[in-house]
Amino acid sequence: MKAVVLLSGGLDSSTVLYQAKADGYKCYAISFDYQQRHRQELQAAIAIAKIATATAHQIVSFDLRLWGGSALTDQKIDLPENRSLPEMSESIPVTYVPARNTIFLSFALSYAEAIAAERVYLGVNILDYSGYPDCRPDYIQAMQEVFRLGTKQGRHGQPITIATPLITLKKTEIIQLGDRLGVPWEQTWSCYTSGTFEGTASKPLACGVCDACRLRLAAFKELGRQDPISYLSTGAKTSSQTSESTYVSP
Amino acid sequence: MKAVVLLSGGLDSSTVLYQAKADGYKCYAISFDYQQRHRQELQAAIAIAKIATATAHQIVSFDLRLWGGSALTDQKIDLPENRSLPEMSESIPVTYVPARNTIFLSFALSYAEAIAAERVYLGVNILDYSGYPDCRPDYIQAMQEVFRLGTKQGRHGQPITIATPLITLKKTEIIQLGDRLGVPWEQTWSCYTSGTFEGTASKPLACGVCDACRLRLAAFKELGRQDPISYLSTGAKTSSQTSESTYVSP
Repeated sequence: MKAVVLLSGGLDSSTVLYQAKADGYKCYAISFDYQQRHRQELQAAIAIAKIATATAHQIVSFDLRLWGGSALTDQKIDLPENRSLPEMSESIPVTYVPARNTIFLSFALSYAEAIAAERVYLGVNILDYSGYPDCRPDYIQAMQEVFRLGTKQGRHGQPITIATPLITLKKTEIIQLGDRLGVPWEQTWSCYTSGTFEGTASKPLACGVCDACRLRLAAFKELGRQDPISYLSTGAKTSSQTSESTYVSP
Repeated sequence: MKAVVLLSGGLDSSTVLYQAKADGYKCYAISFDYQQRHRQELQAAIAIAKIATATAHQIVSFDLRLWGGSALTDQKIDLPENRSLPEMSESIPVTYVPARNTIFLSFALSYAEAIAAERVYLGVNILDYSGYPDCRPDYIQAMQEVFRLGTKQGRHGQPITIATPLITLKKTEIIQLGDRLGVPWEQTWSCYTSGTFEGTASKPLACGVCDACRLRLAAFKELGRQDPISYLSTGAKTSSQTSESTYVSP
């Protein structure tokens, strides 16, 4: 059995990759270089696909700066900093990229049909869909219809299905699931920036103040744990090399 | 009013661009360089967007050769030649590109939302949907749901609509519509190859034998007309510079 797994390199999609593997699929990871501000995530995706022994990993490149419309693709729009969780869920954030998941799922569908895969895995979850329209269950259902009607495989065989194993999970629950699956958290990248190199660091430091960093930090904190990646600024911690070994997959 | 128009540079999408203009929209054309075999069509799209005085024209580049799966993106798969119309409609052809329209519409949706456009125009028609799953009315309807549910604009305002003005038309009727709208046929490119330069030709010659050429030639012939573009091989004609001036838009 084959599955295409949308892999951004963050906590969620990395957990989904390990879940797909646990579900018994040969995993074909797909990532996107859309000239996002946080292209550092691609390095994380490459490392994780390798550690998870994905069968293949495609990186599709295009430029969403062409029309911008998001803080992630337009350097003139500032990233929100130091927002509380309630503030984040008030409205669709400036980090919303118009139709991003539709673009991502379309490429995943094309890839899946070309290699005759049965499934496409996507890491959307409750936290996402409080903010982003293209992460909600009704949207996923609409895309499922597109998967069925818009392909040869869907019309003449078994439609490729969209699997969203995290859709009912909170960030803390995703971390607990990933722990059980052996996700190498120290390799993941969630930050909306591409990080900062400081001192003798071999890896960039996550900013610690963007929405993505704050959600991630809050979840680890709620679990009474330290996030094994290093941050430039958190108020709480900047690095935790000591705890890292706990999370390294075998 | 703003509309995004999917413009491949062929007969159908060029007619749709002129229709969108006639409908009163400021037109934002979008074309795709996906490393298709017939990238010559992009030159046609550029010329037509300019002649039609489109407000903007975006060309989005990505590489669908990554996974192939189509004669248009994999040089190892031969293009069908000299097929009759009934043969063409027997099954989904090897020129089917997995999920291509879904990818194209996704980018168009992203562009439309970023510029606050009301509509996306797409040139699908009866001829297409006899063969291609992602050209049929039920598929378009499924994508319309995605447009509604997958965007900020669709959730919180008026959804961006998909307009398919050619969906009930045959190729001959499209040509008749394009005539009325002033589409410069001599600038369009339908051939599945990028053409051949011969002698002192300043433009490449269309092959005349692929499905796209044959459908186009058959439609002009049925109307008792000469196709104003030049062909390498048709049995019927190779060039018709004399009739060209008839179709040049002012």
